[in-house]
Amino acid sequence: MSCYQQLEKHFKKLSRFNHLGAICGWDQASMMPEGGNDARSAALAELAVFTHQLLTAPELEQQFSEAEKEALTLDQQASLREMKNRWQQATALPESLVEAQSKAGSTCEHAWRTQRTENNWDDFKANLEKVVELSRQEAQIRAEATGLSRYNALVDLYEPGMTTEQLDVIFDDVKSWLPELIQKIQAKQQQEHVITPQGPFAVDQQKALSIEMMKLLGFDFNHGRIDVSVHPFCGGVPTDVRMTTRYDEADFTSALMGVIHETGHARYEQGLPKAWAELPVGEARSMGIHESQSLLFEMQLSRSPEFINLLAPTAQALFERHDDPALSAENITQYNTRVKPDFIRVDADEVTYPAHIILRYEIERDLIEGKIEVADIPTLWNEKMTQYLGVNTEGNYTNGCMQDIHWTDGSFGYFPSYTLGAMYAAQFMASIRKEMDVEQLIQDNNLTPIFDWLETNIWSKASTLTTDELVIQATGEPLNPRYFKAHLEARYLG
Amino acid sequence: MSCYQQLEKHFKKLSRFNHLGAICGWDQASMMPEGGNDARSAALAELAVFTHQLLTAPELEQQFSEAEKEALTLDQQASLREMKNRWQQATALPESLVEAQSKAGSTCEHAWRTQRTENNWDDFKANLEKVVELSRQEAQIRAEATGLSRYNALVDLYEPGMTTEQLDVIFDDVKSWLPELIQKIQAKQQQEHVITPQGPFAVDQQKALSIEMMKLLGFDFNHGRIDVSVHPFCGGVPTDVRMTTRYDEADFTSALMGVIHETGHARYEQGLPKAWAELPVGEARSMGIHESQSLLFEMQLSRSPEFINLLAPTAQALFERHDDPALSAENITQYNTRVKPDFIRVDADEVTYPAHIILRYEIERDLIEGKIEVADIPTLWNEKMTQYLGVNTEGNYTNGCMQDIHWTDGSFGYFPSYTLGAMYAAQFMASIRKEMDVEQLIQDNNLTPIFDWLETNIWSKASTLTTDELVIQATGEPLNPRYFKAHLEARYLG
Repeated sequence: MSCYQQLEKHFKKLSRFNHLGAICGWDQASMMPEGGNDARSAALAELAVFTHQLLTAPELEQQFSEAEKEALTLDQQASLREMKNRWQQATALPESLVEAQSKAGSTCEHAWRTQRTENNWDDFKANLEKVVELSRQEAQIRAEATGLSRYNALVDLYEPGMTTEQLDVIFDDVKSWLPELIQKIQAKQQQEHVITPQGPFAVDQQKALSIEMMKLLGFDFNHGRIDVSVHPFCGGVPTDVRMTTRYDEADFTSALMGVIHETGHARYEQGLPKAWAELPVGEARSMGIHESQSLLFEMQLSRSPEFINLLAPTAQALFERHDDPALSAENITQYNTRVKPDFIRVDADEVTYPAHIILRYEIERDLIEGKIEVADIPTLWNEKMTQYLGVNTEGNYTNGCMQDIHWTDGSFGYFPSYTLGAMYAAQFMASIRKEMDVEQLIQDNNLTPIFDWLETNIWSKASTLTTDELVIQATGEPLNPRYFKAHLEARYLG
Repeated sequence: MSCYQQLEKHFKKLSRFNHLGAICGWDQASMMPEGGNDARSAALAELAVFTHQLLTAPELEQQFSEAEKEALTLDQQASLREMKNRWQQATALPESLVEAQSKAGSTCEHAWRTQRTENNWDDFKANLEKVVELSRQEAQIRAEATGLSRYNALVDLYEPGMTTEQLDVIFDDVKSWLPELIQKIQAKQQQEHVITPQGPFAVDQQKALSIEMMKLLGFDFNHGRIDVSVHPFCGGVPTDVRMTTRYDEADFTSALMGVIHETGHARYEQGLPKAWAELPVGEARSMGIHESQSLLFEMQLSRSPEFINLLAPTAQALFERHDDPALSAENITQYNTRVKPDFIRVDADEVTYPAHIILRYEIERDLIEGKIEVADIPTLWNEKMTQYLGVNTEGNYTNGCMQDIHWTDGSFGYFPSYTLGAMYAAQFMASIRKEMDVEQLIQDNNLTPIFDWLETNIWSKASTLTTDELVIQATGEPLNPRYFKAHLEARYLG
């Protein structure tokens, strides 16, 4: 057995243990009764220790070094690159730091759940300072190992190859036109008369509607299922994707759009190539590319008037509201494309959303690079929210800088992926439009050619290409934010 | 850390991996879509290899030897005994044999699913011969390691301490009175006019009835749940017990009695002592004791007229059949205590059931000891079925010697546990009756004193005692089949 083959075998073994963890993690969030939590957490922690041991096994260094001298196909070279990347990321940090981060993160996150509702910045700040201090240490070590800047070394964990230099250009571009665009859209939408759908919408019917939409969007129920959890996610494994949602009887659109979003993630997972199953090169390319698929489904496809023409009759029939003007296709379309600057990122529309991300990006970048301190966050938050969205957050920590979970456990570098995803989605859709009449296909309920394009250009590529290569092969150019701008202008001002 | 403590740590780690396997196994049977099966099976097989490595780790031999010299409490000595027992059972067999058994077993079981429906004894026989040959090798090796006879060495895996010598005495006793008892009961029941409940019984209502009965029987829904699977079982972990059932719209009693049965297993698991969680000594004592709890719930408690008086009004209300004579308490009682010799073990009533077990016991004992061959099974089956139950199975392999899954994967030595369970249940109930008026308690819907007795005498003991010690402490004497006989006579002829 060659060293490359030994590495493949080792990483497949790792993948099988991760499979068990993914299913038990899904179960913990969606099925497990509360009383099972302590033992489950202990079992998952034991698994995490073991998979970390597998990923940092001493024999790997020699095997990687030998495998690089072996005659490998291009795909195998990509596979080796991805395995090595995982290994390097796992071995970079001393165990003592990983442990300290885990403790500080779970302490901060746990306390945050109460502190947020109490608007208690002072106590949260003390915990967050510890988390930031450890993340700065992590960034320093990763920067030395990779030659990247400190913040870039963290971004690289989620968005391999992406850098502050690119992000600054992209986000500065967005900042140059977004505030004005929001104002124009708001002015235009003032003319519209949108009716808010009035509940209750029975959970069983919402569930049936979700399943209808998942079928329409090609979700493979032989390789996945949908259940309920407090925080919706897309988990499981590519052969058995576990989507979750949360139904709100007062508003059927929140679960519905959430389900469509997760279906985009799910189809990416279900479309990953069987030939590279269980290997890092067979996994999704990056967080941003993953988000591009969920946003292509949720924003590009499903908020279009043509898609809502498919959706509305099903919703009217299931809820038995054929004559409810709130459930007309036109009203649902308007309701689902309403733009309004507000406090909360997760509730934001697709136009104001990038402002929430840019704000977080600028703060976490400077925080990790040591240019600002945790104490500076509330003031900066308020300044930027006021500047980008005209929203004042002074003294409002709950709906300001304490609203997200990400920083509590040290996930710095993740936020940019959301808006990169929206931009990739717009760029992919622009390329799809060059090959086919998207509106006509949706109108004909014939989405297959669109999914075929995604399967050919994105899903089946997994991580065989770098993100840049993937985007250039698929669209003819690297990431270009003009497609996102064009999409927003066409949809909201067109 | 003492060697005993090191062993505890090691076995707790093993238990956490088994936890992941139990949940993923439950998921495979109850939640997973078909398309997820290959990857799941690969993940569980990888886990099985790893847990076998843990259980046979080279350092354990030295640790056991040292730990036995350490100063230990009585409980710790029991804990050490149970850990050592697991280790010895796991290390006894060469890996080549375990692999060969796994292959032959899965080949035989897989083909059996088709061969059984086709009544194809000849092809099944060829596969079973390989399985038996390997089980004989296993029995020989375990016999040499333990000093037991070959068949006893297999029984010991399920019923530690139980031997053919005891089983022969017990089962010969049963054989001496069972055929006549069955005849008497049948003669008596000829007078009864029993109405078979007519479906359909909606699944949702059956589910609600199951949950009501589980609540009545004290199932802790904060540490467990109930779902659906093709083959009902009780899985999961003590802090999170996963029961399954299967609903038949034509007959609500099959799922109902199945649920009550599994609830007995579940309460044993939920009642295991927290102090010994994750250690072998904290697990259930044996298969027979486990079955005694399910049968105490299903047979002793729930087929009593007093319990059915609690159950019937709930069933009538849920199915909206207040005036259906088939759902009167009296009719359900008679319907659930009907005795009729028939082909199939799993469908047998509690009176004829032991005959099915004794027949299998006698055949598998002689098969493992080399006194008979696989080719002899059909003739022996027919002879014994005719002798014990008056049922002819000549040429009927499907409903004769090919009806069970157990032998297909080499689980020889397991069958006696079912009837031992029924006998332990009767003996425990006789002891409970000495302390309280069971009928009155059921009538008053006050089952707690009965459960308290079980918790004190059985559940909380886990594996701290041997089976004999457990039964003697609980009832004042070792296993005595006269309680089972007395129970049958009182219920069916009284």
